Amino acid sequence: MINLNNSVGIVETKYFSFDEKINLENGLDFGPITVAYETYGELNEDKSNAILVLHALSGDAHAAGYHSEQDKKPGWWDDMIGPDKAFDTNKYFVISSNFLGGCKGTTGPSSINPETGKPYGISFPVITIEDMVKVQKKLVDFFGIKKLLSIAGGSMGGMQALEWSIQYPEMVQSCIVIASASRLSAQNIAFNEVGRNAIISDPNWNNGDYYDSESPSTGLAIARMIGHITYLSEESMHQKFGRRLQNKLKPDFNFDINFQVESYLRHQGQSFVDRFDANSYLFITKAMDYFDLHQKYGSLAHAFKDSKSKFLFITFSTDWLFPPEELKNTARTLMSLEKEVTYCNIDSPYGHDSFLLEVEDQTNIVKNFLKGVCVK
Amino acid sequence: MINLNNSVGIVETKYFSFDEKINLENGLDFGPITVAYETYGELNEDKSNAILVLHALSGDAHAAGYHSEQDKKPGWWDDMIGPDKAFDTNKYFVISSNFLGGCKGTTGPSSINPETGKPYGISFPVITIEDMVKVQKKLVDFFGIKKLLSIAGGSMGGMQALEWSIQYPEMVQSCIVIASASRLSAQNIAFNEVGRNAIISDPNWNNGDYYDSESPSTGLAIARMIGHITYLSEESMHQKFGRRLQNKLKPDFNFDINFQVESYLRHQGQSFVDRFDANSYLFITKAMDYFDLHQKYGSLAHAFKDSKSKFLFITFSTDWLFPPEELKNTARTLMSLEKEVTYCNIDSPYGHDSFLLEVEDQTNIVKNFLKGVCVK
Repeated sequence: MINLNNSVGIVETKYFSFDEKINLENGLDFGPITVAYETYGELNEDKSNAILVLHALSGDAHAAGYHSEQDKKPGWWDDMIGPDKAFDTNKYFVISSNFLGGCKGTTGPSSINPETGKPYGISFPVITIEDMVKVQKKLVDFFGIKKLLSIAGGSMGGMQALEWSIQYPEMVQSCIVIASASRLSAQNIAFNEVGRNAIISDPNWNNGDYYDSESPSTGLAIARMIGHITYLSEESMHQKFGRRLQNKLKPDFNFDINFQVESYLRHQGQSFVDRFDANSYLFITKAMDYFDLHQKYGSLAHAFKDSKSKFLFITFSTDWLFPPEELKNTARTLMSLEKEVTYCNIDSPYGHDSFLLEVEDQTNIVKNFLKGVCVK
Repeated sequence: MINLNNSVGIVETKYFSFDEKINLENGLDFGPITVAYETYGELNEDKSNAILVLHALSGDAHAAGYHSEQDKKPGWWDDMIGPDKAFDTNKYFVISSNFLGGCKGTTGPSSINPETGKPYGISFPVITIEDMVKVQKKLVDFFGIKKLLSIAGGSMGGMQALEWSIQYPEMVQSCIVIASASRLSAQNIAFNEVGRNAIISDPNWNNGDYYDSESPSTGLAIARMIGHITYLSEESMHQKFGRRLQNKLKPDFNFDINFQVESYLRHQGQSFVDRFDANSYLFITKAMDYFDLHQKYGSLAHAFKDSKSKFLFITFSTDWLFPPEELKNTARTLMSLEKEVTYCNIDSPYGHDSFLLEVEDQTNIVKNFLKGVCVK
């Protein structure tokens, strides 16, 4: 049985569609678009208590609660969203949606192109973080919300939060950016490129046209395995697995699984292919690669010059995918612009995954920050 | 034209074979074995000036000089081996050999199994660092050398050097270990496992039997790309490529190569498949995975208790594949055993690859160390 204490309880994914095309950063107009979303808590009368939560690469709209009493796991940020939690649903109205290009209900490469009656596949437009944000803006408008109390995301969700504060300065009262960066590093582009290569090299990928046949699960699993190594730290891998052997006392001198860490990675790769679309992986990682607020706006200072948000940046000491130094420097730039910014680096062994695991510290910091935002 | 100043000049790879089987760590007897090797400098009369140099994963016997005047590049450690260089061929006789399981002349999975007349492929025995060292010992015996003045290697070469000092304490006067470790970390096992998965998943791999058909070049290229990211540091990738676009002013919103770092990685992957055997990659990375002096000998202190070497350990500040802390701790253990050990951490931006690039600092340190070894 699921434990509904401190939970938002049983929730349902809803869908919002619009026919009007949006103008993408690449210049193309694209639509119609459907957005999968969930909400937790109640929107107050003057619509001033809404928080938009943004997910990372493999997340979805289901951020908190359970879809049924049979569910084994709650939403991806359930530890942070609920009654009395960091994003306290007794006070706030939390909105979470699957981003454009995803494969969990929002329009993406696996969606049916109404013009052809077939999935978009590789004909889906190459999208950016800004495009994702544009679609989220439509959803917020649909609720009639003029200003978000806060916008919050970890990893790629943090990139969306930063872009929101730049694109819609009047709509973002505060902005919480966790384990993220103002641009993707060369090292991260490199990891993404190898993952994409693994997918594209899988014969089943078939130039993105695989929805009626076998999917490129081998390539996608390899991409996910690479990703998983980068989400953990050397320290957490050592703590979690060390060099422990998998169900054996001595190495067996063959190419079967010898070490626990190998077993873990293969499992992560395999379970991912059951729940994720390979083409989405290509488009989403490409959107990350293109993310660079410095280049896009001329400079970081120029990017944020009109922003009206209070900012909270959280990083983690062992996060080598998004090293603390990056957001720290972004915080420095914001300070030089006399913006209100709080920067916290949490000492944690869990690497990049800390934003999903370090609940207590994040809860204290986020609660405190939101309290300061509410007092106007 | 090649520049022969300070070079060992034109050299030739030679071959040494023995029919006698060696007893492998996995319990099997294996032979016959051929060893590809090169030598630089002159062996002195009492055979007291020999230094054995050990290569890393993708290296070979060709450590210094050129094979012909048309060669574009010298051997892999040419910066360190030659007249007046760190391993000064005016003074020392330097031996370099391709290790067991390799694909550059020494017996490995792509060699012909005399019992079947076909390449071993996956029927090659699973080997270890100790097995490689056993084969190198045969080569040193062949020269009639009773004691090596020094044994030196970076990365996986450092693992072999450590094993040498344990297996043959009477034969190793000094031991130079660079950018290496006393056991492979869980994170490195994980990277190796993903690389192996990419190879094994390539349909052309065909259970290791591809020598008469297309080779699994796609899988091997992906494995190499992963490896290459780990050889550089985030800092060096940033300096080398940053987010610079490849031959274009603006991103072109497609899945072609957009960034220089992508182009570099694809090139590294592609050029590797022309010069390396995929099965060798599997066996060699497995040998690395199994390397664990702590587990093998009960403890690190127990491993080195009979060693008679002077040790020099060199690490690099941004090497995240073999973090400095590891060899530093090994040095501490050796000190507690009252062994002579020098530990140097070089501040370098080049990550793991520093052992091939930081010539000046390494030269000073190695020269000085070898001077101390010669004065008995």
